[in-house]
Amino acid sequence: MASECGNRITVSLFGASHGPAVGAVVNGLPAGEPVNTEALQRFLDRRAPGRSALATARKETDVPRFLSGIRDGATTGDPVAVVFENGDAHSGDYEALRFTPRPGHADYTALLRYGESADLRGGGHFSGRLTAPLCAAGGLALQLLARRGVAVGAHLLRVGEARDMAFDPVCVSPADFAGILKNELPVLDAAAGAAMKQEILAARTAEDSVGGCVECAVTGLPGGVGDPMFDGVESVLAKLLFGIPAVKAVSFGAGEDYAGLRGSQANDAFCVRDGAVRTVTNHCGGILGGITNGMPLLFSVTFKPTPSIGTAQQSVDLRTMKETTIEIKGRHDPCVAVRAVPVVEAAAALAVLDLLAGAGRL
Amino acid sequence: MASECGNRITVSLFGASHGPAVGAVVNGLPAGEPVNTEALQRFLDRRAPGRSALATARKETDVPRFLSGIRDGATTGDPVAVVFENGDAHSGDYEALRFTPRPGHADYTALLRYGESADLRGGGHFSGRLTAPLCAAGGLALQLLARRGVAVGAHLLRVGEARDMAFDPVCVSPADFAGILKNELPVLDAAAGAAMKQEILAARTAEDSVGGCVECAVTGLPGGVGDPMFDGVESVLAKLLFGIPAVKAVSFGAGEDYAGLRGSQANDAFCVRDGAVRTVTNHCGGILGGITNGMPLLFSVTFKPTPSIGTAQQSVDLRTMKETTIEIKGRHDPCVAVRAVPVVEAAAALAVLDLLAGAGRL
Amino acid sequence: MASECGNRITVSLFGASHGPAVGAVVNGLPAGEPVNTEALQRFLDRRAPGRSALATARKETDVPRFLSGIRDGATTGDPVAVVFENGDAHSGDYEALRFTPRPGHADYTALLRYGESADLRGGGHFSGRLTAPLCAAGGLALQLLARRGVAVGAHLLRVGEARDMAFDPVCVSPADFAGILKNELPVLDAAAGAAMKQEILAARTAEDSVGGCVECAVTGLPGGVGDPMFDGVESVLAKLLFGIPAVKAVSFGAGEDYAGLRGSQANDAFCVRDGAVRTVTNHCGGILGGITNGMPLLFSVTFKPTPSIGTAQQSVDLRTMKETTIEIKGRHDPCVAVRAVPVVEAAAALAVLDLLAGAGRL
Amino acid sequence: MASECGNRITVSLFGASHGPAVGAVVNGLPAGEPVNTEALQRFLDRRAPGRSALATARKETDVPRFLSGIRDGATTGDPVAVVFENGDAHSGDYEALRFTPRPGHADYTALLRYGESADLRGGGHFSGRLTAPLCAAGGLALQLLARRGVAVGAHLLRVGEARDMAFDPVCVSPADFAGILKNELPVLDAAAGAAMKQEILAARTAEDSVGGCVECAVTGLPGGVGDPMFDGVESVLAKLLFGIPAVKAVSFGAGEDYAGLRGSQANDAFCVRDGAVRTVTNHCGGILGGITNGMPLLFSVTFKPTPSIGTAQQSVDLRTMKETTIEIKGRHDPCVAVRAVPVVEAAAALAVLDLLAGAGRL
Repeated sequence: MASECGNRITVSLFGASHGPAVGAVVNGLPAGEPVNTEALQRFLDRRAPGRSALATARKETDVPRFLSGIRDGATTGDPVAVVFENGDAHSGDYEALRFTPRPGHADYTALLRYGESADLRGGGHFSGRLTAPLCAAGGLALQLLARRGVAVGAHLLRVGEARDMAFDPVCVSPADFAGILKNELPVLDAAAGAAMKQEILAARTAEDSVGGCVECAVTGLPGGVGDPMFDGVESVLAKLLFGIPAVKAVSFGAGEDYAGLRGSQANDAFCVRDGAVRTVTNHCGGILGGITNGMPLLFSVTFKPTPSIGTAQQSVDLRTMKETTIEIKGRHDPCVAVRAVPVVEAAAALAVLDLLAGAGRL
Repeated sequence: MASECGNRITVSLFGASHGPAVGAVVNGLPAGEPVNTEALQRFLDRRAPGRSALATARKETDVPRFLSGIRDGATTGDPVAVVFENGDAHSGDYEALRFTPRPGHADYTALLRYGESADLRGGGHFSGRLTAPLCAAGGLALQLLARRGVAVGAHLLRVGEARDMAFDPVCVSPADFAGILKNELPVLDAAAGAAMKQEILAARTAEDSVGGCVECAVTGLPGGVGDPMFDGVESVLAKLLFGIPAVKAVSFGAGEDYAGLRGSQANDAFCVRDGAVRTVTNHCGGILGGITNGMPLLFSVTFKPTPSIGTAQQSVDLRTMKETTIEIKGRHDPCVAVRAVPVVEAAAALAVLDLLAGAGRL
Repeated sequence: MASECGNRITVSLFGASHGPAVGAVVNGLPAGEPVNTEALQRFLDRRAPGRSALATARKETDVPRFLSGIRDGATTGDPVAVVFENGDAHSGDYEALRFTPRPGHADYTALLRYGESADLRGGGHFSGRLTAPLCAAGGLALQLLARRGVAVGAHLLRVGEARDMAFDPVCVSPADFAGILKNELPVLDAAAGAAMKQEILAARTAEDSVGGCVECAVTGLPGGVGDPMFDGVESVLAKLLFGIPAVKAVSFGAGEDYAGLRGSQANDAFCVRDGAVRTVTNHCGGILGGITNGMPLLFSVTFKPTPSIGTAQQSVDLRTMKETTIEIKGRHDPCVAVRAVPVVEAAAALAVLDLLAGAGRL
Repeated sequence: MASECGNRITVSLFGASHGPAVGAVVNGLPAGEPVNTEALQRFLDRRAPGRSALATARKETDVPRFLSGIRDGATTGDPVAVVFENGDAHSGDYEALRFTPRPGHADYTALLRYGESADLRGGGHFSGRLTAPLCAAGGLALQLLARRGVAVGAHLLRVGEARDMAFDPVCVSPADFAGILKNELPVLDAAAGAAMKQEILAARTAEDSVGGCVECAVTGLPGGVGDPMFDGVESVLAKLLFGIPAVKAVSFGAGEDYAGLRGSQANDAFCVRDGAVRTVTNHCGGILGGITNGMPLLFSVTFKPTPSIGTAQQSVDLRTMKETTIEIKGRHDPCVAVRAVPVVEAAAALAVLDLLAGAGRL
């Protein structure tokens, strides 16, 4: 149902950018799971805006309030409901654009879908603001996974023409994830981060924006998780990842590069390491037939450039059906991919938790 | 649920490569829809093996038998159940490999998931054979869509290093789809097809296989179809597409190229053409905020090389936990992407039909 | 998923009796539907406690706050999220009973299901308090239905040995529903209401409680709504109705009386009235094969007596596994069926709205 | 989706009474479960027609063919697909009634829902014939449950005015179930069975039919199974049971009698028996707050009289909109409740298996 995802552990998001609040309801979390609210807040702060020249100056209230499902620092087994009150919204910025849809945004399609009652202010329900409750839900999932030895980490693989090194597909470990957080931008190689920063600042200076790609790894995941076909690991993850605003491509392991490989190159030979079945390479990203094989799970997610840019753009006035030019005011991230890194981790954590539940491994 | 997909119009697949039969149950199709069984058979023949040097010599019985839901050449409103009897299976080929999983296949992960009762013969439930009933369901969907002015077409965009031209993202039309079918391989540019044929034959000669990429377009789709977030067009399509065996990447519109674009390049400016709102470019692949904008829907799907190759490969004997070398006998497609072209069309048709139903536009 | 219901229009409930708040998320409501908040509050007041000697004296804050999905007096198409803050909770009343489960309540089964983290205070997530957000969702549904000519009404059919007359199964109309609301208790026959009041007061005086049965009718529903088998009208309604705390039986039309009927008595003969196909009688409660036939929809729902009674009861101390005697303090309805009347209407409205959406009739 | 039910273990039914076949697809069954096909056939034979003067003389082919999911006498983990070919259909019997719907049948509502393409022959998809695949699925479920110590049994509680004794709600055991099968009709008290036989033969002689009620018990079920609210045990069972053709009422434990009880009578006091928590009485039918409490699960299901009766009935000719009289030819059960006893057991087994899976207890 639209704003909801998951089979055993479901996440339902609600709210709009300039409405009273955004929030999430999570069903299916086990009871008795400790919740570290400080660690959760640190995770949420990675997504929050207003902290550097690389992100929007909008100050959002990114402190979650739990209305249900958590008591005395642990889950109760009831649905978890979390709310983020909205504030600091400049809705006046948007009314002028009501009938001249912004290119790259959902304004026009939301009007087609919902008619004039659609709340388009700040992107409405389509806004990146909805990733706040997604991260709250995912942040809880990360804590449950950590207690089961499963870690999730992501980094900027690419911004414009600047590229980070990729995770080592066989040896990636939680130590890599810790290293990422020490850099100004979330990257493995600090030099790549510096280059990305230049790309972002250059776009910002040009009143423009730039796209990016996030690579994510999940370690510690047992083999045998996932179902065949439409509830395979790829399908479950992709449905969730494509629900994140601005995501336009998802690939697993070698992904699009598979098209250029021979089978003899692409197949991951089985081997024995420390008494366990492993593969020598990991082109498949840890997934065969939709089911995990015990190797690191690897995927990447491509984000559009922020559609809101300062330069003039061509649109259509829907009242007159005449072409017109619009200029977008307001505060916008020059590269959504930066703040999307923890969002990808959150989505991955929710998907993996759901898959583990489906395999009876939670 | 695993082998099932869809919200309003659901497809549930069953069967295994070497079991008695494979089939599908489709729920939610409207009643009174004419079914052209000859056109359906022609569509199924595009997927069927055994027709050229480019595909496996296995002769499958690709004639569907409808057990439910169709009477006197039209749908009745009851669930549609379709069965393909299996035949011509050489199960002996596989027993030797029972405890030495084939690299790149689901043998090992299926054993982890289902234990020794798993039916691994010929890939079992994970086999490409399951795309026969998927195509039967999708072939029906294509007929329903055609009556509503919606057309679906796909072609090989890449095989190894050979590349076809891409669809014109703004002007692609059913005439392009018709042209594709006239070539020996499903391509827009016959010269590209010849190069791809060389790639495939070279792989075949080397007892190897090669990967590929399929691009698909949907024309005639109205704007306003799809829901926000997890039931957006991208999510619905991706869940289905990643359920096709061997799919490892899915991208919409500019897809992974978005990472290198500026917003001023990526945004599709709105314009007026023939009195209607259109976009000048179509990087977004016809989807904004998960909802169609009335432009052609465009996406591409990357397939692994066939994991079954004739050359020796390293595996592990799971009984002794010793590394060992296996050789795979049997008949295999050197490039699954070729026969996957109609499969992608089938999946797209089912997803689009489901989305139209969800939008009350069916 | 547990606290969620519906196919096209879903309702997800969250919160616990003594937690911060209870609430609901409703997905799938059409955009642009006017919302009359005053009429909604009047509907909610019918469920609210603290108004008469016949109900608990607990004063709940039954004023809904909408966090999402409604703007400027109309639905926006976004998920509707509504919250009721909790207050006036005497949690101390419950801690004493933590390890001695109350007979008839979910204390014991919640402990089995969720372990010691379960929030049992005031019944936790199992409390009748959760019917407040259910009524908010259902109250919106009633307004949507009213604009489509569909009306829903319920009354107390039985409390203890006091019985009201039943709806006329063929001629029941919205005028009957209006009449019910004029009586002190929601009944068709005021004399029956007086007898029920005596039953309730007698139970209250005895520090006891009493069960009851609610009959509900839906008028104005077109024929052809519902699906065969497990999404038939009966299945959809029953799944929702049995989710209301204390419901133990659901019957449609003649219900349990069908067991004593001959087919020649039970079959509803078709006739023509005012040019339309109708039935002479309405034993089937307006449903044949799970699909509406255009006659009034009729069903009844039986509620347990309130499990919380003042008299001493036998329980088990789960720490010592010894039998013991408990006494329940606090404020409780002597008959949950009274306040359940609007709850049944709310559930019926949500189910009917979902069914209409499924039939493309919304 | 209409003809499908279940959360973790789903059953999807297809086919029509006079189509090529009826069948079921079951998803989610664990792998490696032994399947005793002889025991399954004995179970199916209890539902099959054509065996006595008490049932229809129609000879159906009630031998299941498994197309998927079972190999070498055990489940493989793949979807289980089972088909019953149809035969011996006299469709000519029905064409005469095409435009004059039979009272009590789904003919009229199916026409409203599906239009003239609806396959109404023999009741089409609404026919009791669909209970054959339901029993095949349920028969498998019964075998899985038996290996986990869970037994399911049902009996005729009432036919017309003849009534059987009820199960002992505290002490019912599998021995009771074995006793039921020794009687000509499935009852606890053979004398009650004789009285029911008279009711049925009297109805048959009068070319009429008679309704009935089936009581079902599930023993050996652990406590803590089920979820709150809409996936409580009552909701899960009711959704499935109301999907059985002709079911019009479902009640749990004391059911409708709760309306006349005081709380002090209705509450089941907790006690300790053999070191375990039990209840002294079992009015709640083993369910508190939607979750099992470890006592026997008890419910009853009321069936309409067979709508097909030999006597003349009033209908409407939909072409002329004139009232008319119809007579139904053909072979019909005088009391569907008799053959419904194993169907109720099958539905209960599927629901309980699904609930156990949901609780991680499978």
